[in-house]
Amino acid sequence: MSKPYVVGIDIGGTNTVFGIVDARGVVIASSSIKTRKHSTVEAYIDELNTELNKLMEANDAVGKIYGIGIGAPNANYYTGVIEQGVNLPWPTPIPLAQLVQEKTGIPVAVTNDANAAAIGEMTYGAARGLKDFIMITLGTGVGSGIVINGQLVYGHDGFAGELGHVIVRRNNGRLCNCGRRGCLETYCSATGVAQSAREFLEARPGEPSLLRNIPIEEITSKDVYDAAIAGDKIAKDIFEFTGEILGEALADFTVFSAPQAFILFGGLAKSGDMLMKPLLNAMEKNMLGIWKGKVKVLPSELKEADAAVLGASALGWEAKPQVPTASAVPVTPTPVAPQLPQN
Amino acid sequence: MSKPYVVGIDIGGTNTVFGIVDARGVVIASSSIKTRKHSTVEAYIDELNTELNKLMEANDAVGKIYGIGIGAPNANYYTGVIEQGVNLPWPTPIPLAQLVQEKTGIPVAVTNDANAAAIGEMTYGAARGLKDFIMITLGTGVGSGIVINGQLVYGHDGFAGELGHVIVRRNNGRLCNCGRRGCLETYCSATGVAQSAREFLEARPGEPSLLRNIPIEEITSKDVYDAAIAGDKIAKDIFEFTGEILGEALADFTVFSAPQAFILFGGLAKSGDMLMKPLLNAMEKNMLGIWKGKVKVLPSELKEADAAVLGASALGWEAKPQVPTASAVPVTPTPVAPQLPQN
Repeated sequence: MSKPYVVGIDIGGTNTVFGIVDARGVVIASSSIKTRKHSTVEAYIDELNTELNKLMEANDAVGKIYGIGIGAPNANYYTGVIEQGVNLPWPTPIPLAQLVQEKTGIPVAVTNDANAAAIGEMTYGAARGLKDFIMITLGTGVGSGIVINGQLVYGHDGFAGELGHVIVRRNNGRLCNCGRRGCLETYCSATGVAQSAREFLEARPGEPSLLRNIPIEEITSKDVYDAAIAGDKIAKDIFEFTGEILGEALADFTVFSAPQAFILFGGLAKSGDMLMKPLLNAMEKNMLGIWKGKVKVLPSELKEADAAVLGASALGWEAKPQVPTASAVPVTPTPVAPQLPQN
Repeated sequence: MSKPYVVGIDIGGTNTVFGIVDARGVVIASSSIKTRKHSTVEAYIDELNTELNKLMEANDAVGKIYGIGIGAPNANYYTGVIEQGVNLPWPTPIPLAQLVQEKTGIPVAVTNDANAAAIGEMTYGAARGLKDFIMITLGTGVGSGIVINGQLVYGHDGFAGELGHVIVRRNNGRLCNCGRRGCLETYCSATGVAQSAREFLEARPGEPSLLRNIPIEEITSKDVYDAAIAGDKIAKDIFEFTGEILGEALADFTVFSAPQAFILFGGLAKSGDMLMKPLLNAMEKNMLGIWKGKVKVLPSELKEADAAVLGASALGWEAKPQVPTASAVPVTPTPVAPQLPQN
């Protein structure tokens, strides 16, 4: 194979991590830059290109990159554009695929971070061999990537799979960053768990808890996990509450696409039985009869450090340069700049 | 085209309607038999075959049927089997595709009634040209057929798209036939509207209503519609209530597959503004920002009388006989019985 590698780039609000990955999903080398260092997206992409070139040169990968896959918040697979409403320091929309492709000369495919994770899991992780599954990412928010019949669901406009914004509490629901109330991610994200801690501590004033040793506004989901592991009743109840809401939601999601499994990814997904027990109980209790006992809930099998890069890189194999049609082939062949169909 | 027709069969709890349909979706001829007349499914299929043959002979269609498509409750596209829990007078599971194929000698494809409606709408109706839409059937229950990227979603096991069983009222929800509480279909089906009438009349005892002229257990959704059209306040409030719940649900469904449109089918879908106004208001109010004002809700464009047969018939074009592979072709050609890959 003349181009045996792909590059995966994960653009987060703080760091941008990128790596060179081979066809078996081995991360050959990786590096990172600070996302927020540059005031313009062009300057940011300049640095990204410079650092990526260094990495390719150091690993004998120059000219051997088949494509670049990028996972970024609100990035649209169809258009290659990062749309509005994201935690990035530059004005949107950002024509990300086009900018990176012009700078690097390598075909680029982009999608949002949760979809990238789903592709990574399907290619290298817990979803290998599964044709119908739903990836749920439990991070600062709740994201999802839906795979049906082996295909990622992008929907009409490229934004499908926003399961973190299904409304799970229609009355008196928590205010979401999206402006509505009661979204799943206000309860089942890391932020949601921290919010639950504040609510539980205030609602049960007489009850002692390890969490009361922490200033209430500074409590994180990790603090709640540590307290629960130490046997703290309020902390354990918070995980019960979180798992129950997520389990109810997964039962509802099942009627849509009848998946073989849900794959959970992110910090909270590593909470073990603390989260999984109430989650599975609630899911089974709320499951429509025909699916009772049939849908698996699996933790991600991607190594945390590599996951974001691996997920994005798997998309790189889809970033195929356009083949010119017969009538478009020039008489004297000249180099054809690789192009994404969607750009 | 040597086989220019398909046959569509819609198996309902009371009647089985079937018809011969050409490639443009014209119902050439149709007929029906009583579903419940026979104590065994074999006797039922005998009569169906006899009557279908009469119809084919009368319309010069013998030997010209490409395939038979059947829509039936809980019928599984992958296996061709009607599974448990249906309102039919025979024991389940019923290997429907196999039985009809053996009897008629014509390839058969089956799916559930809501999926058949979605295929019909995509082939001949309001969803022509749409690649991403969700069909919602508002009948005795609430069914759905989900189309993503031009493909009907069957899911892992063939049962995907049971959106009538998304739980929309988690506390004190109405008891559903599925055994759980709060399913969408307990509110937004014809049965659900009749139930709402009983609840509203009991909850507002002092208020006059045209609906009080009808014995409370006999009120139908049609009665509620007629009363609402006549200006009855309680009846209009029932449609507000129904439309609001359905609108909230459609907003939630949008985050899953980002459809271009929802297509509403069935008696309730013909209630016009009475249902559509509160539905659209609630849908837009509950819609995640990126889809506000972008998702259409359209009534079915299939003629009521033909809809079930047309929908099922469109599936007939998918019922392709298996082509034997080179090594399997006998030296002396003998007739090959048409077979469905899934049987």
